[in-house]
Amino acid sequence: MKFQYLVGIASVFFLAGCTTMPRGDNADLIIHNGQVLTINTEMEVIDDGVVVVKDDTIIAVGGHELMQQYQAQKVIDAHDGIIMPGMVNAHNHLPMIAFRGLGEEGISNRLFAYFFPLEAQKLSRDLIYNATKLGAIELAQSGVTTYADMYYHMDEMAKATKEVGLRAVLGETVIKFPVVDAKTPYGGVEYGKKFVEEYKGDALITPAYAPHAIYTVSKEKLQEIHALSEQQDVPVLIHVGEFPNEEKRLEGETQAKTPIEYLSEIGVLDQRLVIAHGIHLTPNDQKLLKEADVGIAYNPMANAKGATGIAPAWEMYRADMRIGLGTDGPMSSNQVDLVKTLSYAANMQRLKYSDRTIMIPEQVIEMATLGGAKALHMEDQIGSLEVGKKADIAIFETQSANMMPNYNPYATLVYQANPSNIDTTIVNGKVIMENRVMQTVKLDDIRDNVDAFEADIAEFAKELAKKAIKSKSLMD
Amino acid sequence: MKFQYLVGIASVFFLAGCTTMPRGDNADLIIHNGQVLTINTEMEVIDDGVVVVKDDTIIAVGGHELMQQYQAQKVIDAHDGIIMPGMVNAHNHLPMIAFRGLGEEGISNRLFAYFFPLEAQKLSRDLIYNATKLGAIELAQSGVTTYADMYYHMDEMAKATKEVGLRAVLGETVIKFPVVDAKTPYGGVEYGKKFVEEYKGDALITPAYAPHAIYTVSKEKLQEIHALSEQQDVPVLIHVGEFPNEEKRLEGETQAKTPIEYLSEIGVLDQRLVIAHGIHLTPNDQKLLKEADVGIAYNPMANAKGATGIAPAWEMYRADMRIGLGTDGPMSSNQVDLVKTLSYAANMQRLKYSDRTIMIPEQVIEMATLGGAKALHMEDQIGSLEVGKKADIAIFETQSANMMPNYNPYATLVYQANPSNIDTTIVNGKVIMENRVMQTVKLDDIRDNVDAFEADIAEFAKELAKKAIKSKSLMD
Ligand SMILES: [Zn+2]
Ligand SMILES: [Zn+2]
Repeated sequence: MKFQYLVGIASVFFLAGCTTMPRGDNADLIIHNGQVLTINTEMEVIDDGVVVVKDDTIIAVGGHELMQQYQAQKVIDAHDGIIMPGMVNAHNHLPMIAFRGLGEEGISNRLFAYFFPLEAQKLSRDLIYNATKLGAIELAQSGVTTYADMYYHMDEMAKATKEVGLRAVLGETVIKFPVVDAKTPYGGVEYGKKFVEEYKGDALITPAYAPHAIYTVSKEKLQEIHALSEQQDVPVLIHVGEFPNEEKRLEGETQAKTPIEYLSEIGVLDQRLVIAHGIHLTPNDQKLLKEADVGIAYNPMANAKGATGIAPAWEMYRADMRIGLGTDGPMSSNQVDLVKTLSYAANMQRLKYSDRTIMIPEQVIEMATLGGAKALHMEDQIGSLEVGKKADIAIFETQSANMMPNYNPYATLVYQANPSNIDTTIVNGKVIMENRVMQTVKLDDIRDNVDAFEADIAEFAKELAKKAIKSKSLMD
Repeated sequence: MKFQYLVGIASVFFLAGCTTMPRGDNADLIIHNGQVLTINTEMEVIDDGVVVVKDDTIIAVGGHELMQQYQAQKVIDAHDGIIMPGMVNAHNHLPMIAFRGLGEEGISNRLFAYFFPLEAQKLSRDLIYNATKLGAIELAQSGVTTYADMYYHMDEMAKATKEVGLRAVLGETVIKFPVVDAKTPYGGVEYGKKFVEEYKGDALITPAYAPHAIYTVSKEKLQEIHALSEQQDVPVLIHVGEFPNEEKRLEGETQAKTPIEYLSEIGVLDQRLVIAHGIHLTPNDQKLLKEADVGIAYNPMANAKGATGIAPAWEMYRADMRIGLGTDGPMSSNQVDLVKTLSYAANMQRLKYSDRTIMIPEQVIEMATLGGAKALHMEDQIGSLEVGKKADIAIFETQSANMMPNYNPYATLVYQANPSNIDTTIVNGKVIMENRVMQTVKLDDIRDNVDAFEADIAEFAKELAKKAIKSKSLMD
């Protein structure tokens, strides 16, 4: 590993923004005494590294000598830990955390037995708000600083996410059925328009549209959303290639032989699109995705749990495509931290290609950070620790038994680390968690709300369980 | 779920063993206020459950009313957590924790570039002792109360394991090369004999023989070890079916078409044998294993990371075979806790059989506890919370964000839990860790030793890395 030092041009900052800083300070936050994984083009690792932040931005990254050049009131000692870009969870349905753990008894009709009745009966603005807070705390506690989500009442999600202090791309779901926040089919388009208008330009929230999938959204609506996304310059999130032959479930006529060919044919495959899953992709699909500069969220753990398969992530990574990691929603993966997903990201590819030498830890960490940023088309702002990028930073401690020894920080993170080894999480220059203590919303603030929805849903789920598996002796 | 209460016959204990207990106490340890997963034949779950321990043994398991019947000086409040049998890690090479994270750069000749030089140059009695301590702390901190291991200088491992307070089956490796603790080929037989004599009858350590594999140990030596294991009544641990066609690597003549057929042919397939991996098993192999009552250690995470494949664990589980979970050694899986392995245990089977309804969380937890006990032929002593069994107990807290909600404790454990959610670990009636604080050996007690071996090995590994991947730009 090379140890080059990237020194930010400090002098520029002497001129601006000193109003909020005490005399003599030329930075707001300095992190030192850790191993810095920059995830820059050279993948430089800086032992005894320093990261300097002013306002929401990284202004210097380098070696110990930076401590002579910068002063700040807030100085975080990483205690020989690992300082890295915050992770990006590129696909989620976070409020479903309220339902996680339900329907896990091996029933085959889980969608109809649990998902639909739960969403029909129990989703509310309140539940979405409170569940998002719980989920956002779990994200912050595991070093995720940005997540992308497809769900309902995205204004509630935005509110909760901002309170916890995370960055998010929030896509309002569009689907051909009436749903919790839209009484008419495709009501999400109107809801989404208002949501985009309200949040466009927000420092933390990137509003977006989220057509559910090609088989649940018509060609016309996909094209309408595409036009809107161009006008308003916002992302579009969609599920593609989660199941085999999704194109066979289309209602209209098509010449396309795959979902990706279909999206290309109808003119919506572009640099604002982010597809989730991409398990079933032909070489031509991958070529189309690369040419159109589409982002891809690879969800290795959820796809294994759901037995849907293994995406050709290694091929896309090697082709320098925009591929990041996601967990999918908490009814699919039951957890939203990326730490457990890291080993899956590597191991599933190794199984798929029968090759233990591929998808090495360094590549996994790149995928979990810069890869996710690229998938969400945000790599100009986040994904690496470089001068000019937003200060989204995670610090892992390396003092616990499971973090010892630490010969290769990438391998330590991918295979040894647990979410609890995340010590400090910083988003947009703000310390969200420090020494494992949340600094924004605390879990105890929302515990009563969580207990209340848990009790209510548990009661309702008992009835669902009786119907779903009444033939099983487990429930006799 | 049913809520039956199993009340131990307390009266028996009024007569015996009162010498160590204050007046009026009829137990040594009571755990209450938690959800008890008994893992008994009915897989009973007891809400607001109680487990009562006297000396090293469980004397009562039941509901809250047991609090009226038993008194003890030590009472542990589980604070609404999950009380379960300690987990059993059925396959490991724990001291290799000293080397974990090395050789992860995607090289194809890792065995020769790292394993062999490291073991040849750096293994010592001291390293094995100190690395075992580190590994045993990680095991205790993640709720593993029993582990099975194949390595060298097993007397050092036994010493360190007993100091930390874990239960273990320790098999001295036998292999056709000279190794660190035996200057002649197969020297492990003699070493093992002495080790077995020294530790036979120990409360925590079950000594064993560990012939490495059929292609590294001759037929004659396998038969000699088998005879010894019969005479001394101790287990035999061996790697089988980790790679395809291991039988083709045999030196002698055989009619057998598979490694299991070979072991059967030479007369060593019996109820003392525990095989690790079993990835490549025919239906006939599975039948032979079942008939001979052989234990199987399924290592889903290590087998995925190493791209060796997925064992037919679901078939063996359904056939009611003796199958438990293992991590394999820390150079294969890089971690030794079973918590991360739980989701792999389910998800790999779901991928293998393209069925999301199989290997449900309840079955995974059974495999991680009673299954492991059965694999090691110890189910009469450990693996469930039942009257008469040894008091090997793990308590998970359910207050952290990632443990909420907790609708189905099995699903919570398999998919939501992290090792850090283990609050308390009890082995043989002794509290090893409480409120996450180690009560026996503390990490700080060994930190200097770990730092010293890490620095020494890191220095040596730099040279190995230069040789191994000198062509890679990473190291330029
Ligand atoms: Zn999804
Ligand atoms: Zn092994």
